[in-house]
Amino acid sequence: MFGPVLGIDPGVSRCGYGAVVQEGGALRALAGGVIRTPASQALPERLAALEAELEALVSELRPVAVAVERVFFQVNVRTAMSVGQASGLALAVAARSGLPVCQYTPNEVKQAVAGYGGADKAQVQAMVTKLLRLSEAPHPPDAADALALAICHLSAGRFRERVDAGGNEPTGAGLARAVAAALRKESS
Amino acid sequence: MFGPVLGIDPGVSRCGYGAVVQEGGALRALAGGVIRTPASQALPERLAALEAELEALVSELRPVAVAVERVFFQVNVRTAMSVGQASGLALAVAARSGLPVCQYTPNEVKQAVAGYGGADKAQVQAMVTKLLRLSEAPHPPDAADALALAICHLSAGRFRERVDAGGNEPTGAGLARAVAAALRKESS
Repeated sequence: MFGPVLGIDPGVSRCGYGAVVQEGGALRALAGGVIRTPASQALPERLAALEAELEALVSELRPVAVAVERVFFQVNVRTAMSVGQASGLALAVAARSGLPVCQYTPNEVKQAVAGYGGADKAQVQAMVTKLLRLSEAPHPPDAADALALAICHLSAGRFRERVDAGGNEPTGAGLARAVAAALRKESS
Repeated sequence: MFGPVLGIDPGVSRCGYGAVVQEGGALRALAGGVIRTPASQALPERLAALEAELEALVSELRPVAVAVERVFFQVNVRTAMSVGQASGLALAVAARSGLPVCQYTPNEVKQAVAGYGGADKAQVQAMVTKLLRLSEAPHPPDAADALALAICHLSAGRFRERVDAGGNEPTGAGLARAVAAALRKESS
């Protein structure tokens, strides 16, 4: 068993997080939730509090890698600034902790978790629930998105490893089979 | 003499900084420059390096307040994300150091330094040079923008103080006179 991957869905008001570990071909959720900062506080204090919470998560969960959502297309520039502020902290905390950190677009996450980039939120939640063999969908939804990011990183890592090794047999075949099996159940 | 105000013009590739102290009615530049992070590095490492440099600046310059540019209108969302990431770090570093931190829009800065919100870059640079009685314009231009932010905060602080006190005589009359005098020289 390797250490967990910590997924972070950055936001100042709500920042989702989720830690997933791969055990053989199966995935297991170790933690999931959302960091909230109160709108009544000044922005600098909220950002400092968010950074402290992210540092505490890294200390507590000891991830081997961090996956952060990369957002290029936002409804508006104000939202992009806010997401940027939160993601900047997440990326810096990871780098400062000496952890590899990758960014994935929402489409890459949907592709990895649900099999196609156009999946909607409900489909992603359903697949996260199945892949992690949870009894119900992760709550709040921010946690599901963050868990999906961690799953995406684990599958991407497997695929990269396969490409790097140049071999014919994917080392992440177990995970790929789990995703395929869950997708079959989902569509049946 | 109060401690200096640290102005920060956030950016990942180039982050301008400038420290200004008010001595009576006159302003003096203590430091100014730009923090660069190499495009060859991965983003998380660049953000961690930027945060470390900002922390070092705060330790070294011991500002009493930090002024960070607030940008709502960017050319595109990608730029907004990048500026957001850098500004998030600046705001969090200031808050974590227990420093009051204010954000000012470019228009507020231009208004404070050059007397009107539509001033162009050259006019802002010329006014910063005059107000700080520098022998030449601050270089690189990022430093001038950051020094202008610090000046804006000092003037805003004065105006706020006046409003808070409810008095008739602005406590920042000295600074206001310096700005007015420099503007007269500028326009003559």
